[in-house]
Amino acid sequence: MAHDPSYTNQEFKVIGTRPPRPDGLDKVTGRAKFGADAFAPGQLVGLILRSPHPHAQIRKIDTSKAERLQGVKAVITSADMPDLTNGDRNMLDILENCMARGRALYDGHAVAAVAAIDMPTARKALKLIKVGYEILPHVTDVDEAMKPDAPIVQPYVRTTGVEPKPKKASNVSQVTQFGHGDVEAGFKEADVIIEKSYITEQTHQGYIEPHACLASVGPDGQGELWVTTQGHFAFREVCAKLLGMEVAKLKVTASEIGGGFGGKTHVWMEPVALALSRKANRPVKLVMSREEVFRSTGPTCSTSVDVKIGAKKDGTITAATATLRYQNGAFPAIWAMLGAMTSYACYNLKNVKTVGYDVLVNRPKVTAYRAPSAPMAAFAVESTIDQVAAAIGMSPIDFRIKNAAKEGTRASYGPKYGPIGIGPTLEAAKNHPHMRARLGKNQGRGMACGFWFNFGGQTCTDLNIGVDGTVTLSVGTVDVGGSRASLSLIAAEELGIAYERVRCNIADTGSLGHNDMTEGSRGTFSSGMATIFAARDAIEVLRERAAKTWEIPVEDVVWEGGQAVAKGKAHGNLTPLTLSDLAAASPNSGGPIAGHNEVVADGAGVSFASHICDIEVDPETGATKVIRYTVIQDAGKAIHPDYVEGQFQGGAVQGIGWALNEEYVYGEDGRLQNPGFLDYRIPVCSDLPYIDTQILEIPNPNHPYGIRGVGETSIVPPLAAIGNAVSNAAGVRMTHVPMSPPRILKAIKSEQAEQAKLAAG
Amino acid sequence: MAHDPSYTNQEFKVIGTRPPRPDGLDKVTGRAKFGADAFAPGQLVGLILRSPHPHAQIRKIDTSKAERLQGVKAVITSADMPDLTNGDRNMLDILENCMARGRALYDGHAVAAVAAIDMPTARKALKLIKVGYEILPHVTDVDEAMKPDAPIVQPYVRTTGVEPKPKKASNVSQVTQFGHGDVEAGFKEADVIIEKSYITEQTHQGYIEPHACLASVGPDGQGELWVTTQGHFAFREVCAKLLGMEVAKLKVTASEIGGGFGGKTHVWMEPVALALSRKANRPVKLVMSREEVFRSTGPTCSTSVDVKIGAKKDGTITAATATLRYQNGAFPAIWAMLGAMTSYACYNLKNVKTVGYDVLVNRPKVTAYRAPSAPMAAFAVESTIDQVAAAIGMSPIDFRIKNAAKEGTRASYGPKYGPIGIGPTLEAAKNHPHMRARLGKNQGRGMACGFWFNFGGQTCTDLNIGVDGTVTLSVGTVDVGGSRASLSLIAAEELGIAYERVRCNIADTGSLGHNDMTEGSRGTFSSGMATIFAARDAIEVLRERAAKTWEIPVEDVVWEGGQAVAKGKAHGNLTPLTLSDLAAASPNSGGPIAGHNEVVADGAGVSFASHICDIEVDPETGATKVIRYTVIQDAGKAIHPDYVEGQFQGGAVQGIGWALNEEYVYGEDGRLQNPGFLDYRIPVCSDLPYIDTQILEIPNPNHPYGIRGVGETSIVPPLAAIGNAVSNAAGVRMTHVPMSPPRILKAIKSEQAEQAKLAAG
Repeated sequence: MAHDPSYTNQEFKVIGTRPPRPDGLDKVTGRAKFGADAFAPGQLVGLILRSPHPHAQIRKIDTSKAERLQGVKAVITSADMPDLTNGDRNMLDILENCMARGRALYDGHAVAAVAAIDMPTARKALKLIKVGYEILPHVTDVDEAMKPDAPIVQPYVRTTGVEPKPKKASNVSQVTQFGHGDVEAGFKEADVIIEKSYITEQTHQGYIEPHACLASVGPDGQGELWVTTQGHFAFREVCAKLLGMEVAKLKVTASEIGGGFGGKTHVWMEPVALALSRKANRPVKLVMSREEVFRSTGPTCSTSVDVKIGAKKDGTITAATATLRYQNGAFPAIWAMLGAMTSYACYNLKNVKTVGYDVLVNRPKVTAYRAPSAPMAAFAVESTIDQVAAAIGMSPIDFRIKNAAKEGTRASYGPKYGPIGIGPTLEAAKNHPHMRARLGKNQGRGMACGFWFNFGGQTCTDLNIGVDGTVTLSVGTVDVGGSRASLSLIAAEELGIAYERVRCNIADTGSLGHNDMTEGSRGTFSSGMATIFAARDAIEVLRERAAKTWEIPVEDVVWEGGQAVAKGKAHGNLTPLTLSDLAAASPNSGGPIAGHNEVVADGAGVSFASHICDIEVDPETGATKVIRYTVIQDAGKAIHPDYVEGQFQGGAVQGIGWALNEEYVYGEDGRLQNPGFLDYRIPVCSDLPYIDTQILEIPNPNHPYGIRGVGETSIVPPLAAIGNAVSNAAGVRMTHVPMSPPRILKAIKSEQAEQAKLAAG
Repeated sequence: MAHDPSYTNQEFKVIGTRPPRPDGLDKVTGRAKFGADAFAPGQLVGLILRSPHPHAQIRKIDTSKAERLQGVKAVITSADMPDLTNGDRNMLDILENCMARGRALYDGHAVAAVAAIDMPTARKALKLIKVGYEILPHVTDVDEAMKPDAPIVQPYVRTTGVEPKPKKASNVSQVTQFGHGDVEAGFKEADVIIEKSYITEQTHQGYIEPHACLASVGPDGQGELWVTTQGHFAFREVCAKLLGMEVAKLKVTASEIGGGFGGKTHVWMEPVALALSRKANRPVKLVMSREEVFRSTGPTCSTSVDVKIGAKKDGTITAATATLRYQNGAFPAIWAMLGAMTSYACYNLKNVKTVGYDVLVNRPKVTAYRAPSAPMAAFAVESTIDQVAAAIGMSPIDFRIKNAAKEGTRASYGPKYGPIGIGPTLEAAKNHPHMRARLGKNQGRGMACGFWFNFGGQTCTDLNIGVDGTVTLSVGTVDVGGSRASLSLIAAEELGIAYERVRCNIADTGSLGHNDMTEGSRGTFSSGMATIFAARDAIEVLRERAAKTWEIPVEDVVWEGGQAVAKGKAHGNLTPLTLSDLAAASPNSGGPIAGHNEVVADGAGVSFASHICDIEVDPETGATKVIRYTVIQDAGKAIHPDYVEGQFQGGAVQGIGWALNEEYVYGEDGRLQNPGFLDYRIPVCSDLPYIDTQILEIPNPNHPYGIRGVGETSIVPPLAAIGNAVSNAAGVRMTHVPMSPPRILKAIKSEQAEQAKLAAG
């Protein structure tokens, strides 16, 4: 696909303005329909019975009493969700996570489900299901799980990425390695080497809206699913495969989404809802409780990471390594691999090596959380970077600038960079007033950098022009952060009309071609690309209609400023035809005017950010307060700056929560002890300062408008930036996230004891 | 647009088969969602206050008490629906029909509306609205309304189509005239002339599902409408115009439709629902009662028609005239014009003249009902035709065959016919076993012919291929009679795949370009055309993908039997790629595969039918029984013969009801006396024989598959066919429809009295 690079520096008329988002009013007034807001006549209430054990053989499930309860229309177990995956182990894992098949693999794992006429009946029915468990030994810690005598979570798993191929089952599902150069030689060149280990605890995306769906499957094998999701087309494909349906026979509609951040890229209970509906022959609504969301939907990995960085006194990093152990919950995934890929992506390194260990434990299946895996790696690397800088006596920012990757740098994970923004964000950080602001007592400043790949992928857009010249834009990427506004701006820009004349709709799967998930910061990048091409497709039609009206060759018609203009002296008397003119005439000039595009949006631009933050630490209690926070990030072209800034701020806030408070707490019994927002505390407004932002625009040459993804990178630096700030404020290096008051206090006490011991000599 | 005429006689693989319709199971199990089945959180109940007077000045409306009632969220009158029509009188009429503006024009005319939290509150609120009426004289009969001293229904109306232009208001809104030749000269040539007058009473389409919608408009001017309709795109445009919204900002979704037959081509209360929602700032659901449906939604015209036909003894019609007076209810329309156009369309006439009078009365606004206006004209003409045949001693069928129109005939309404089916249906009728079956005592046989134009118009179709090779077809013509099955067959035929691999969805207005109404028998004709072109568009993509896979020129790839085949000796080793192969590879070969088409489907083929029926008349009571009924009609190519036959049968049944029972009864007070299915009796199964059908296929050369419309013509002949049968059974000529038992008995008694008088000399 050819792009016109001239677009990347073009003058825009509406792109870059900040009109209100079209879904805004509905969302603040409560009119917007979220996952739980759907209703179908005759719908049943679904509920899921979940294992209270982290690891147990399911000896038998007796559903007979539940089935006999009046008002119960269906009870299902894994027997009602037969394995149709045809040897596709990944799909079988998804199915097994939806409903345990013989073994419960984590506290909260679904073992049965009911559909009943109302909630009290469904609750009663759940209690009447008798499950015979044989409790098995469990493991929930990533390092414990790697020990040779650890309980095996998935007996089928053989570690990949090692030679010779192992014959025994292991909790390490894969080992991956990235890098280049000779790290041993590099470390020999170093004047200073810092080696350190870090821990991060498991967190949840913490979206406000729990998972919810309304499923309906008829005996004819046709079905519908209304669901809160980041990708209804992908949900359609997965559900169709798991249920043995044809893709075209399952129509999935995405509700408004009350937050996803990666957690709604995966099916958790939707196949269960469909199976219940199929068995009950009634629509079934399934809405998770908050406890269910915590216990059984994709949190992040907890991690254990070792970092070693060597540098010369002049500030050149000579070698860097990282060993990353990421737990994936009970099902194999690639999270450590992503950590190994991203850890050193900000830097231009001669010798670098990262090794990732993806590890199974008896916890819920991990899924994506905003730049998945990168924040933990960045915490370890960026914390160490600060220590190396300190050791050689350089400022952390100058040290980073010296080693920053640039155009042409070979990334630690393989490819060569095109034009990138890490250097500019660091320079901007260095020059930012925040860097020179005075700090008060017990306050410290930290900074850190972050990287995310961004993705492209399959995308379809239809653009239809109404008879009054207003435009409906039909896209398939769920709007999680204002993309309807951005895409409307793009359509308006191309067509030369006002933003208000465009309405962007998220099409259901019955009326548009496949769209990949809204993940990987791909929404505005990919649907923006498809929108541009669809608009240009429509402009071709508009030009043809004008040419037909004027009876002149279409080559003599150009589209300029929202109207068809006849070019050439011979046509000097022809008044330009606006889009509204041509739309009004369309019923008699050939019918409705439309443009379409189906594309694989290649060339997503990598994204970098530098964050600065000031923290105050109370040395008496270990309590922290974020005093000031600044995000500087390369957005490529910022289509709608408000929503770009919103992404920067949202990512930073989630990073702050992760850094300071959020944490899954598992007991010795392998059960989650804090599955609720009272005990799992995400930051609220009063916990936070205003998050300042600075957008840099280094155009992505692979996109007609220069767009990069913007949604994820902003969550990558906060853990490390805050760690560095706490270290500067309290004089202790924090290596364990979250840096909750008890952990900070413990670190301070331990440092004081150490100092006392040294003083006592 | 170029059509390939070879398609009209092509060999079809799946076209012409009879698979189950995709919406069938949902409809028989109750899962299908109709107009009243939608739900939005926070929705209000809407109710409309209607005038009990046929004609009254509204002196004032006091809504203050209703507004103060707890639970009432909005009360509206015409003041809340300001005139934004910018001088478009037709649009203003629509608005005024939705809500009276100063005068109530018929019994049932809306004067105010409320939205409240529940039905009891809404009912109470209606009662609290005080309307001050000044009752005006009214007129409900079409002939009365034409008298010089009749009360004027619409003071703004000046008769069009007459010279000199009238200065005074009249209830005759327009006079239209069609024909050619010299009828006076023609009548002079005639050996026999029959001149007769006929009356038909007003009927209702009698759809089972009342009008229902759920409207939601936000303060930002964006809205949604879920509605039972025959055309959600047209509803969008009309509602947007009346409410002052932009077309793209109003998303309309068509529910399943429980019958429409023309009655759901028009907005009745949808703008009221939107206005209520806008004022209440909450979603509002409006569901009509059956009484409201009868009193205030579009019935047919009652008519008064004079026919004069002259013929020579050899059977040649020498001249024919018709004067048609059709009441349009309280708002001007073109129904008499359509009657004047269709009345003689079946015949090849040298001298013909028809004059239509569109007349206003104080009855609800008339709207389309299946081949609107044609059944009444056919009743008058075809009844007279039988009498002329009898007078010259020819069989009715031979007389019709002799005068039937054929290819090249100049139609009485203007154009020259292409290939048409009236002759073949008559020949088929003549040869049908029904024609030779023995009749019992008090039984008579009648036949009649019918004509309908059929329409084409604006249509859009998107076709998307899923990764498993199943296909979603997205169309915008509401499925009233199985078009999803027909369109799926067409897509399957073009793509060379199984019918079951296609799912056809009716897209909402946000995700497809404009589609005209499902009316004029255009659904399968026009969306079929767009589907063919969209499928061919997708096949181009499939060929490109295959060529890319094989690395050969696309010109060397043909699409045959559902797969891409490499042509030429050089490619002999290449295994054909099926649609499923190419679909599975699509994510890596360029992305989703789709086809699109926007078209003005020109060239709808005219349609003809001949019906035969046997009636038994009880001479003691006037009661009738339909003994046998046969429909013979030209369908062009019958895509799904079951649903073609269903249309034939449904039209015949509605015609039977109209002919024998159905009738609006207005009292002297101008109020409708029978607004319910108990007193307005539509035929039920036990009233009917099996309706036999015979499909003739005279391909329409203007359609790639030869499709004609099939939905309407079948309602045209029944009134006359039954009239002719009753005449043959009871020996009396019926000139007043419905031929209810009292009317038949009266005719028999009157004939007996006449005979007695003659015998007494």
